[in-house]
This record gives sequence, structure tokens and C-alpha cells, in this order.
Amino acid sequence: MSNFNSNYNQKKDMVNTYLDEYLIKKDNYQKIIYDAIRYSIFAGGKRLRPVMAMACCEMLGGNLTDVMPFACAIEMIHTYSLIHDDLPSMDNDDYRRGKLTNHKVYGEGFAILAGDALLNKAFETTLEQTLKNNIDSTRALHAMSVIANSSGIEGMIGGQVVDLESENKAIDKETLNYMHIHKTGALIIASLKVGAIIAGASEEEIKMLEVYGYNIGLAFQVKDDILDVEGNKEKLGKAVKADAKNDKSTFVSLMGIEKAKKELKRFTDKSLKSLDYFGDRNEFLKQLTLYLSEREV
Amino acid sequence: MSNFNSNYNQKKDMVNTYLDEYLIKKDNYQKIIYDAIRYSIFAGGKRLRPVMAMACCEMLGGNLTDVMPFACAIEMIHTYSLIHDDLPSMDNDDYRRGKLTNHKVYGEGFAILAGDALLNKAFETTLEQTLKNNIDSTRALHAMSVIANSSGIEGMIGGQVVDLESENKAIDKETLNYMHIHKTGALIIASLKVGAIIAGASEEEIKMLEVYGYNIGLAFQVKDDILDVEGNKEKLGKAVKADAKNDKSTFVSLMGIEKAKKELKRFTDKSLKSLDYFGDRNEFLKQLTLYLSEREV
Repeated sequence: MSNFNSNYNQKKDMVNTYLDEYLIKKDNYQKIIYDAIRYSIFAGGKRLRPVMAMACCEMLGGNLTDVMPFACAIEMIHTYSLIHDDLPSMDNDDYRRGKLTNHKVYGEGFAILAGDALLNKAFETTLEQTLKNNIDSTRALHAMSVIANSSGIEGMIGGQVVDLESENKAIDKETLNYMHIHKTGALIIASLKVGAIIAGASEEEIKMLEVYGYNIGLAFQVKDDILDVEGNKEKLGKAVKADAKNDKSTFVSLMGIEKAKKELKRFTDKSLKSLDYFGDRNEFLKQLTLYLSEREV
Repeated sequence: MSNFNSNYNQKKDMVNTYLDEYLIKKDNYQKIIYDAIRYSIFAGGKRLRPVMAMACCEMLGGNLTDVMPFACAIEMIHTYSLIHDDLPSMDNDDYRRGKLTNHKVYGEGFAILAGDALLNKAFETTLEQTLKNNIDSTRALHAMSVIANSSGIEGMIGGQVVDLESENKAIDKETLNYMHIHKTGALIIASLKVGAIIAGASEEEIKMLEVYGYNIGLAFQVKDDILDVEGNKEKLGKAVKADAKNDKSTFVSLMGIEKAKKELKRFTDKSLKSLDYFGDRNEFLKQLTLYLSEREV
């Protein structure tokens, strides 16, 4: 496990280095907006999605430096979605990861622009780096297309839409599943696929990673819902029992804590099983799967 | 001039047809967000930017169907920027083009998501259509990169940032110029360049279009500021003298109406002059330039 930890942290450090490079201020008029986006980008995220992209790229024989723009683009999109999600007209959250949310520091107008800017930077970065570093253009176009589709209405934004529509009302399990597969799952699946695409993976390999991503995405969300009830406020850096307070339907509210824990195990087992396809190259993703089901933050 | 009008309207109709196709609802869960984005996309815009892209593509011998995804993507980005710009934490506008603004109809949360969705759709569309229609991938990557850069912090969003920072305070002419070149000019220049890139234009041709775009962009903004003072509320579909009411610095507030009219003429003449480079292929853009300086809406 300590091997896994150091491998994970090495990848995470690499993500931070590249994000720092991609988000350099180019213009003195733009200090405040770069401050705002860097505030949220460097707020201590786990970098789970870019690490997943890197792990898949590595597992399938790809070049890590080629995947970095795409991995970091996904982290930018994830971060913008959190900034907008925290806004008063959405979830209205004051804290995230133990720090004030973006609009609490920079005001709503700049928080909206910071989110817009990060979504835009995701595509600026992948396009610029593809052209600059002569990344294979067919692979790059495919990877960008996967990112765009999974962050749009048929992906992450679609999950946000259902989330916002479901506020203060009970939803059924089918709708909850739809919401999480879109809101959280889509970008996780995209991370895995993008890593594979940049490595030049086969269609079958990509399909297997989709199955893995579907299950690990749901496991991740069930775990989040469990942590919201049983987690430690200091470790999480945000209020616990926030979902119940906001009248949000969760796996725990729909099926109770014990059944939710069984669901977590079921999705985790399914994830592990789908990794068998990759033989002994799957070690890092296996460890990652276990780490995610046991995490405390 | 009637020839110009019918040519313009033909292009505009083509933009509307393609936008309608690109923004088809794919998923029943997503009715509200498609309603929200279509509400603003089909609110009666002039389609100036996509028409410019089409005109440049045509002038330089390109294929109109190839440029449509890029032309429409720019219109999507323009529309998302209006939705976010109208929000209470930004310009706080209730009406645009004679209709209630997006958040007045769908609420702030959905208006934010509708904007996000449109920005995202811009890239989804260009990527999907490039892959589906075998558009030359080098040209496509260049065109997308131009769009992304000019809609980001070093482009349109950067203009919004300075606009938001300048609220309720006087700014100098240099800052006003910076703001408009970014907020309005960047996307206009991008439209021209994208049309040229898809047509396979030379670097010199693209450079000349940049000069044209810089001047026509400023002319467009000066004219907007003049219309805000002298325009007809019914024709404009929005309140006049809104800038003065909001304490916004404009070309008119900085230099007076007579000097602003001289600036409009100066920028228009410069625009026309830069079109000479294209010989007799420039007819449509010349007419467009005159139309923009004389428009009443």
C-alpha cells in the first residue's frame, strides 16, 4: 500500500506542476480572475480524475507527458463545476475542503466568471498543447470530444440539472442513479477513456474501462453519501449531514446506512472484477479502487 | 444594398437551421435546460459573428458547410456570455432584445447552467462535426484554438472581468479600449479568422482580417454606445440610456456624442480600407461594414 501511496502522490504532484504551468497569468489586467481560479484549483483537491487518466495511459503503454493537458483539463472542468455548484442560486455552500467557497471570497460575479474561465481554459489548454507538442491529432480530437461530451448536458451538466430540479423534493432511486452517473460518473469515465485514447488503446480496452468507470463512479458517490453521515467534519473540511439539512435525496436517505454500505461493497467488487481484463498491469487501479472505498475524506 | 440584404438573410437562415440541428434535445431528463438555451439562442439575434465567419470562408474559396459548426459555436459562446452577463451579480438586466432575460424566466440557477451548457456545446459541436464530417483536422484544431483563446481570459472573459471591476467607477480611455477589444472585439476577430482558417487562407490573409476585425469591432462598440443614447427603445428592445443609469463609462460618456460619431466614422473608414487587400471579392464585407455603421438596432 505504501508503494501505492507514493505512486499516487507522485502523479498528484505532477498534476499540480502542470496545472501551475497552464494557469499562469498572462496579462496584468487579469490578476483578480487568475487569483480566483487558482484559489479554487489549488484548494487541496485529491486530483482523482487526472490521476486516473494518467494511470490508464501508463497501464496501456502511453506517454505520460502527452496525457497531461487532457488530465489537467478534466481537473479544471471538475473545479469549475464545484465553483458554480457552490453558488447561492445552486447549493449555496459557504465552505469546501475547509476553505471559504469561491464566491464567499471573490463575490458572485467573479465566481461565475472564474468558473466560465476554467471551463474555457480546459479547451484552450488541450488545443494549445496539442498544436504545440505535435500530439497525434486524431487521438487528441477523440480525447477532447470525450471530455466535451461528458462535461455537457448529456454528462456532468445534465447531472447538475437534475440535482437542481430535485431540490427540496424526494426523488426515486432511478433518478438518483441518473443524477450521479451524470454528475460524478461521466467525468470519471471520461478520465479513464482519455488516458486510454491518448495511449492508443483498442476499442475493447476502452469499453472495459467504461464498465470499470461506471461502477467506481457509483461506488465513489455512495461513499460520499456515507461520509456525509458518518464522516469527520475536521477531516472532510466541510459540514457533515449537509445533505439531510438541504433535504437532498442520497443513497443513505433512500436505503439506509447499512444497505448503502452493502451497495458500496457491491460496486467496489464489480469495479475490481472489471479490472481483471487488464491482467497484472491493473495493480495501481486495483489499489486505487480499494483506497476509494476506504477513504475518510 | 438589397442584394446585400438577401445575401445576409440567406446566411442568417442557414445559421438558424444549423443551430436548430446542433441543439436538439437528446434526453427527456433534460427538457428544461434545452428549453432555457433555446430560449436565448432563438431570441432574435443578428447572427453577426457566424455571418462574418461564413463571409470570410466564402470570400477565400472555402466550403460553407465546413465552416458551419465553427460559426455556430461562436454564436453559442456569444449567447452564453449574454446570459451570464445579464445575471443579477453581473449587469442585472431584466430585458434583452425585447424579451425577459434568461434568469427572469428560468431562475438564476438554470440560467447559470444554460450558459455553462452553451459554452460546452460550442466545443462539443465543433469536435463532433469535425470527426463526423472529416473536416481537415489541422484546420479544425487551429480554428477551435482561435475560438477558445478569444473566448477566454485573454479574450472575451477578460473583457467581462474588466467590465465587472469597473462597475460604478470612472475608467480611462485606455481601459475602455482594452475592455471592448476583449469583450466584443475578440470574438468578432475570431469569427473572421475561423472562416479564413477553414478556407485554408494564407497567414497574410488572416493578418489582414485581424486588422479589419480590430477596427470593425471598435466601430461596432462605439455605435452601440451611440445607440444607447440616441437609439429607439422599441427598435432596440431594451432600455436606452442604461449605461448612464448604471454609471458605465462609454465612448460617449468619455468623449461626448459628436466626438464618438467621428470615432465611428474613423474606425469604419479604417475597416473599409483594410478590405481593399481582398480586391473585388470584398463586396459583401464592405456592405456589411456600412450596414453596421448605419444600423438602428
